[in-house]
Amino acid sequence: MSSSIKIAVDGMGGDRGPRVAVEGAVLAANQWDYEIVLVGKEDVLKRELSKHRVVAGRISVVNANEVVEMSEAPVQALKKKKHSSISVAMALARERKVDAFVSAGNTGAMVASATLQLGLIEGVKRAGIAITYPTVHGISLLMDVGANINASADHLQQYAVMADVYSKYVLGKKRPTIGLLNIGEEESKGTEVMKEAYKLLRDSNLNFIGNIEGRDFFTGRADCIICDGFVGNIVLKMCESILETVVNLFQREMMANPVSKIGALLCKPAMQNIRRTTNYEEAGGAPLLGVDGHVIISHGASSARAISSAIKAAGQTVENSINEHIISAISDLNTNHKPSEWKPLPNESRIAKEAS
Amino acid sequence: MSSSIKIAVDGMGGDRGPRVAVEGAVLAANQWDYEIVLVGKEDVLKRELSKHRVVAGRISVVNANEVVEMSEAPVQALKKKKHSSISVAMALARERKVDAFVSAGNTGAMVASATLQLGLIEGVKRAGIAITYPTVHGISLLMDVGANINASADHLQQYAVMADVYSKYVLGKKRPTIGLLNIGEEESKGTEVMKEAYKLLRDSNLNFIGNIEGRDFFTGRADCIICDGFVGNIVLKMCESILETVVNLFQREMMANPVSKIGALLCKPAMQNIRRTTNYEEAGGAPLLGVDGHVIISHGASSARAISSAIKAAGQTVENSINEHIISAISDLNTNHKPSEWKPLPNESRIAKEAS
Repeated sequence: MSSSIKIAVDGMGGDRGPRVAVEGAVLAANQWDYEIVLVGKEDVLKRELSKHRVVAGRISVVNANEVVEMSEAPVQALKKKKHSSISVAMALARERKVDAFVSAGNTGAMVASATLQLGLIEGVKRAGIAITYPTVHGISLLMDVGANINASADHLQQYAVMADVYSKYVLGKKRPTIGLLNIGEEESKGTEVMKEAYKLLRDSNLNFIGNIEGRDFFTGRADCIICDGFVGNIVLKMCESILETVVNLFQREMMANPVSKIGALLCKPAMQNIRRTTNYEEAGGAPLLGVDGHVIISHGASSARAISSAIKAAGQTVENSINEHIISAISDLNTNHKPSEWKPLPNESRIAKEAS
Repeated sequence: MSSSIKIAVDGMGGDRGPRVAVEGAVLAANQWDYEIVLVGKEDVLKRELSKHRVVAGRISVVNANEVVEMSEAPVQALKKKKHSSISVAMALARERKVDAFVSAGNTGAMVASATLQLGLIEGVKRAGIAITYPTVHGISLLMDVGANINASADHLQQYAVMADVYSKYVLGKKRPTIGLLNIGEEESKGTEVMKEAYKLLRDSNLNFIGNIEGRDFFTGRADCIICDGFVGNIVLKMCESILETVVNLFQREMMANPVSKIGALLCKPAMQNIRRTTNYEEAGGAPLLGVDGHVIISHGASSARAISSAIKAAGQTVENSINEHIISAISDLNTNHKPSEWKPLPNESRIAKEAS
C-alpha cells in the first residue's frame, strides 16, 4: 500500500537551502518506500542529487523557477511568485498528483498557499499547525503554533478535535488527554475566548482534563495542549531555546573548576542523550491540520535528518488517513453526535509500535 | 533615611502559611534597617514570632482576623472578608501608615485590593506585575505576568514605561533595552494590538529594540520584555518548571550508568550554582507597578528567604521613589514630551552596586 504514496518535498525551502533538502529526501528515499518528488530549480536540484546514490525510481524532480524567501511577506510573495516551489508543489497536492507536501520554507506562505489552493476540510473553520515535543512522560502535542493568531472558542474546539485525531492515529495514543493552555486551572480563568472554549471542550466527548498551566508544559500531563497561534508560537520558540540556554549555563559552571570539568567529561554521553531526546529538529515536522490535503511544515533550520523525519511524518498522515478521521470527527462535532469510538486502522498498530 | 521605611508583610499569605512568612520577616528585620508590620491573626503571628530572636523594635503585629485563601475567587473573597490580612494591610498602605506591602497570598486578590484601595497613579490606565528573572546575560524583567489579561496597545506602552523606570532605578540599568514579545521580529507581525503597540513604542523615547521572539527570552537581548498578562503568566509558569524538568532529565540520564553517576557527583556544586542562579523563588517578589503605593507580590510557594528578598525589593522601590519616577515618565508620555534623561537618585548608585 505505502509503495504508492507520493510526497512532494520543497527543494528550495529552509534556511539551509537545496543541499540539505535534497540530502533529507535521499535519506528518506533510502529508508522508506515512498516516491519523493523534489520541487524547485531543476538544474540546482539535479546537481545536488547527482552527489548521492538512491534506490532507483524513488526520487524525481519537478521544476519551479521561483523561491519564496524565508523573510518575505507570505501573501504578497505568493501573488508575485506564481511559479515558486511552494505554489507548484501545492498545485501537485491539489491535483492529487502527490499525496502530501513537505517544506521547511516560509511558514506563513505554506499556511496561506495550503489554505488557498487546497481549501479547508468540510466543516473546518481554520487550519492549525500541530507540533509534537518531548516531555518527561513521552511525546505531547501543541496546537496551534502560529497558523491562526486570533483563534475563537470554536476554532480552539476544532483544534482539540484535530489534535485528538492526530494523537490517536499517528502517535498511537488510545484516548489522548486534552488540556487548554490557560493562566489557571479553574473554569473561570482567562479571557472570554478561553472561558467559552473551556465550556465547549467540557461538553464535548473528548478526554478533556481542563485548563493546563505553563508549569504543566513539560510534565506530559496532557497529551494535547490547545492554544491560539500567538501563544503557541511564543511558547514553541521558548522551548527551542531552552535547552541551548541550559547547556550554556552548564558549560559555564562546569568549566569554572577542575573537579566539575572532569565530572562534565564523564557526563558527556548522558548529556548527548538529553540533547537527542529534546532535539526539536528531529521531531519530524509539524502537520498543518484542517486543510484538504496532507501538508507538513518543517522547521526553517531543519537538518537533512529533520527533513527526512518530516517526510516520514507525511507518509504516516497519509497511511493513517488522517483527513478522513478529521472529516468524521468534525462532522460528529457539528451534528452534536457522540464521536465514534477509537478504532485502530490497518496501519495503526504498526505506527503505534514505532512511536512507542 | 531608610530607618523610617515601614513595610507591611502579609503574615497569612502563601502556600506555606504564617510560619514561613514570619521567618521571612525575621530574616529581613535582622538584615536590613526596615520596620516590619506583620499583618494577620495576632495570636498565631505572636506565637511564631516567639520562636525567633530579632533586632528590638523592628517587627510589630497588626491584627486581621480573616484570610483570603489561595484558591478563592479574588473579588468575591475581598467583598466577603473585609478583615482579611490583605485588606487590612492594604488599608495601612492607603493611609500611609506603611510605605510598602509584601504578600505571598492570592495574586488576584492582591491586584484587585491594590487597585481598589490604593487606586492607580495619575495617568496610568492599568496596573501590571513585573518579574525579574535570570538570563544568560544577567537579570531581565518581564511585564505583565498576570494583572491584565486583555492589554490594549496603550496599556503595553505604559508597561514599557514603568518597566523602564523600574530597571533604571531599582535594577540600576542606565538605558534598558525594551522588547515587545511577539511572534516575529518584523513590525507587521502579530495581532492588531501588537502592531499598534509596536508603533507606540517605536515612536516613544524608550530604548525600544523591536519585537522579541520566544527564543530571545533567555538570551538577555532585552532588559525588559513587554507582553499582556495572559501570555506573560503562561510564559512565567513555564520558566518556573523548566529547571525542574531539565534537572529531572539529567538525573534520569546520569543515574543510568556508573560512569556518569560519578560525573554527576563531581558536577554537584556546579549544579547547585545553576539552581541558585535560576531560582525564581529567590528573585525577590514581583512589584505591582502603576498603583498609588508600593506593593510587592511574592510567589505563592515562597520560602522564608524569598519573603525576605521581597521585603528587600519593597524597601528598594520605596528608597528609590519608584512611583515619583513613574508619575513623571507617564506624564511625559501623555504630554508627548521627550522623557527626562536618566539621573541617579541619592540611593540609586548604592542599589545599582548591590544589584550588579
